[in-house]
Amino acid sequence: MPAPDATAATNAPDNAYTPTDRTVPTRSRERASYDREAVHAILDAGYVCHLGFIRDGAPVVLPTLYARAGERLYVHGSTGARPLRMASGPGAGRPGLPVCLTVTHVDGLVLARSAFHHSVNYRSVVVHGTASPVTDPAERAAALDALVDHVVPGRAADSRPANAKELAATAVLRLDLEEVSAKVRTGGPVDDEEDLGLPHWSGVVPIARAYGAPVPADDLAPGTPVPGYLTRL
Amino acid sequence: MPAPDATAATNAPDNAYTPTDRTVPTRSRERASYDREAVHAILDAGYVCHLGFIRDGAPVVLPTLYARAGERLYVHGSTGARPLRMASGPGAGRPGLPVCLTVTHVDGLVLARSAFHHSVNYRSVVVHGTASPVTDPAERAAALDALVDHVVPGRAADSRPANAKELAATAVLRLDLEEVSAKVRTGGPVDDEEDLGLPHWSGVVPIARAYGAPVPADDLAPGTPVPGYLTRL
Repeated sequence: MPAPDATAATNAPDNAYTPTDRTVPTRSRERASYDREAVHAILDAGYVCHLGFIRDGAPVVLPTLYARAGERLYVHGSTGARPLRMASGPGAGRPGLPVCLTVTHVDGLVLARSAFHHSVNYRSVVVHGTASPVTDPAERAAALDALVDHVVPGRAADSRPANAKELAATAVLRLDLEEVSAKVRTGGPVDDEEDLGLPHWSGVVPIARAYGAPVPADDLAPGTPVPGYLTRL
Repeated sequence: MPAPDATAATNAPDNAYTPTDRTVPTRSRERASYDREAVHAILDAGYVCHLGFIRDGAPVVLPTLYARAGERLYVHGSTGARPLRMASGPGAGRPGLPVCLTVTHVDGLVLARSAFHHSVNYRSVVVHGTASPVTDPAERAAALDALVDHVVPGRAADSRPANAKELAATAVLRLDLEEVSAKVRTGGPVDDEEDLGLPHWSGVVPIARAYGAPVPADDLAPGTPVPGYLTRL
């Protein structure tokens, strides 16, 4: 008889990622999803991820921007930055950097009558894999555009593209979406039956990201209009 | 002549964390801070961290709640959850789980005329150390209260405390604030001189966390007032 994980892997349809031992959570499995559309939607709703890697035998977690293009994620940084140096480091036997890239949106605070059942509504995606340097010039250029457009859709076309010197100073890493899972909690608190009569308020406090009015740079020419892609944010 | 890192360590005043090799960034060192008050303020402004650890030789990054009490951080979870099991695992030679705990607040999108100088205003704290299980009943109870109050100040006193069964199902980990750094970017875009005449809008789009009106649970008794600690959020 196959183990539950093996069954899940066998049955994974094309529109879903194949679950693996490390993408099946030990807890709250009912919150896990491998659906490609669900994963893409969560990834596309954010632009800051937390990138985990191992340095000198210890875990390191750093915030960084990312962008998605199809089934690939891109991150970038200075060629001098640690994880980018590590991923691009001396060739043989070192084709990339094992990473875990996690994106989390917090959607609400869930207040139950009991302290124990307090929770948070969230959407998160965890990607396991090996980040490898992008060297193809066309893919690099597209990835850099995607990184700008992922944060502010439409902005890449309305800025000066990177020149040769800037391109040489920028490392781009690619992480394929293969070993991926989403985890989502929605809805109200779930209190124990015997707590329902307690006098404590219970419910959800929604949380959202709010953009303020754009603040022009000190050196921006007066009268420069705020572009439509910013007012639409 | 001492290396720069060693000098920094020697000169670290009591109100600052001592920089170490892994808390001195390779890039943008001017953005790094070891000031205790600055670190505490960033930690206290959030409640979701990204916890990195190593499992089967690979990095794992998971979002989780945290709270600060003085120079200690606490995270918690089911005793069945992976990182908590790993930290509490069979004693000898395994006193805890090496982790990296990172907290990030995104404060603004920084749009420069050049794609290259686009950036993000942020405040982040990275903590390296070993997470160890909290077994003292009083410290556990205080940590669980802190975890609730860190998200919604005042809520712990207005909910049913954990009972013996719930306490037994909950693992609490402690991470001491010793090897810690903050990194902060503020202000507008910094464009190259020769780009200042380009027609692209430049400036900052501020970002903030916005709380919506509290949504009562379906089973909440009608007329239960929204507590003051929620309207103050």
